[in-house]
Amino acid sequence: MFSHEKLKRFCKEVFLTMGCPQEHAETAADVLVTADLRGVDSHGVVRLSGYVRLWEIGRVNANPNIKVVHETASTALIDGDRGLGLVVGPEAMKIAIDKANQAGTGWVAVKNSNHYGIAGYHAMLALEHDMIGITMTNASAHVAPTFSVERLLGTNPISVAVPAGKEPPFVADFATTPVAYGKIEMYQRKGEPVPLGWLQDEKGCPTTNAYATHEGGALVPLGGDREHGSHKGYCLGAIVDIFSAVLSGANYGPWVPPFPAYLPVPENPVGQGIGHFLGAMRIDAFRPADEFKANMDTWIRRFRRSKPAQGHKRVLIPGDPEAETMEKRKSRGIPLLESVVEDLKGVADKFGIKF
Amino acid sequence: MFSHEKLKRFCKEVFLTMGCPQEHAETAADVLVTADLRGVDSHGVVRLSGYVRLWEIGRVNANPNIKVVHETASTALIDGDRGLGLVVGPEAMKIAIDKANQAGTGWVAVKNSNHYGIAGYHAMLALEHDMIGITMTNASAHVAPTFSVERLLGTNPISVAVPAGKEPPFVADFATTPVAYGKIEMYQRKGEPVPLGWLQDEKGCPTTNAYATHEGGALVPLGGDREHGSHKGYCLGAIVDIFSAVLSGANYGPWVPPFPAYLPVPENPVGQGIGHFLGAMRIDAFRPADEFKANMDTWIRRFRRSKPAQGHKRVLIPGDPEAETMEKRKSRGIPLLESVVEDLKGVADKFGIKF
Repeated sequence: MFSHEKLKRFCKEVFLTMGCPQEHAETAADVLVTADLRGVDSHGVVRLSGYVRLWEIGRVNANPNIKVVHETASTALIDGDRGLGLVVGPEAMKIAIDKANQAGTGWVAVKNSNHYGIAGYHAMLALEHDMIGITMTNASAHVAPTFSVERLLGTNPISVAVPAGKEPPFVADFATTPVAYGKIEMYQRKGEPVPLGWLQDEKGCPTTNAYATHEGGALVPLGGDREHGSHKGYCLGAIVDIFSAVLSGANYGPWVPPFPAYLPVPENPVGQGIGHFLGAMRIDAFRPADEFKANMDTWIRRFRRSKPAQGHKRVLIPGDPEAETMEKRKSRGIPLLESVVEDLKGVADKFGIKF
Repeated sequence: MFSHEKLKRFCKEVFLTMGCPQEHAETAADVLVTADLRGVDSHGVVRLSGYVRLWEIGRVNANPNIKVVHETASTALIDGDRGLGLVVGPEAMKIAIDKANQAGTGWVAVKNSNHYGIAGYHAMLALEHDMIGITMTNASAHVAPTFSVERLLGTNPISVAVPAGKEPPFVADFATTPVAYGKIEMYQRKGEPVPLGWLQDEKGCPTTNAYATHEGGALVPLGGDREHGSHKGYCLGAIVDIFSAVLSGANYGPWVPPFPAYLPVPENPVGQGIGHFLGAMRIDAFRPADEFKANMDTWIRRFRRSKPAQGHKRVLIPGDPEAETMEKRKSRGIPLLESVVEDLKGVADKFGIKF
């Protein structure tokens, strides 16, 4: 078990050594460790060495000049200057919140960025301002559109955070595929077949082969197949791609640069870096915040106390599992796989830092 | 085959006879017949008699005073005054478009409305203004949250319309369930079991019983079951419910009034009528519209020409099937089931109009 404070201090030191300004290093470390605290281990410190490698090959700029390229009362287009998405995301959300304070809502499209960690972190920044936070990001292509065998979309997550009154906030944060890729890797490690409905083979047929993506196959959109609504998951992934990248001037579809630094960046880019889209809506731009929050409490309580299905003890509200894991890990610490610890030690050695 | 002009004239006459003002009758008829033209038969003239019955029992106000209750530069809260959603929806979208012209984006939450027909109609109103149109609406509860046996959410559709340059626009319009209820009714008529992954029984277990919802069962969220991401479909349906109704002051969750006039309205309402949420984003509030539209063309062409899966001839762009059906039906006419024709004749008789 590792304390989240210690992990955060370590990450911050790594980012500082990379040349990140103090405030950026603090934010980036907070985004990473918050993922681990919330139980989204796939987006936490396990990725630290990946960010370092992107910086080493010059794809990440440790000291970016994040700037507004164009704006209106309720919108802004941001150039992330190849910064860490972990820094660009929160900066963009700050602008969205400022706009919402002035104009009721604020919407920011971001180009020229990199992987921004868990979407939920950015959406949740709106909560303390009595605003609804919304964000989405595109990612490199692993998902085939319905009826296609080509990988053209990322797992393109969406997050929406809604403040409540006495209840904890509603926080949805999900990829637009049946499962995240990390779950498929777990089956690979166990040497077991995956359930039907997660992957397709090189011909576009459903498969249980956990290695299908290594053999010309692809992840499928949420829904799984046409009969179960995969065209709707395809719509969602496409909307995320368009809002994040076509609207901002980032790369979209198969042109999105991959996270692993050893993979080549697609040729003939159609934009700059990867793209995000973030929004903040002031509750009282619609109705009094107290009224809204009292109704959110009613909504949450009604859903939470609904009758569970056979074999289940309770019905969850989006955000419940993550909030509970956070509570636990804050006091008991964060469990890390041995391989992740080794990876972090490698980063420490590289920079002459103690882990 | 029925010509869309004739069907529209007939619907308009019905709405006029109900007491709708000229312009409202025109709009409502256009929304209904556009659904039939686009092949969304479940939301077209088949529902005309249903709207009439809601008017007869006083749940629909034929001459509503649709008014702005509260607003900011980029937002408005609208009271639909129990008007036809078919009229309230386009009125709200007009306000969103006006706001977007001024502030870059416009966002409208609507309470005290009724069923607004196909979501896509309202989203597409933004297209001719070089704006992205977004809308969602809640609906009466047929869907059980993941792990629950209670029906707490509607099929809560989302529509996003994005303008392109030389290509037709991108128009996503989908319920947040694997299938619409109309598809399940088709299996009931054929006396066949439905595929697993559409419905659950009264215990919350997957079932092929097409009549499950008559026997304590429920529709499931997009994803089907937890293993295939139904918690993500649950998130989507919940977001639609919250944006449409908690933000506006309409009824949400199990309190949403049903479309059929013979069903009782839930007791102890938590708001007024049903709710919608609509938004318009001016493209050039982010980047020049020409640049954006050229990139949308690239996006659309890359996806459309991607390699099809085995057994499929081509990969579709959201909106393609509806646009193609519209083209066909505009010239060849709209096919109506005998039962629908009888239903329309019934409405005609009731009002002393010729069908």
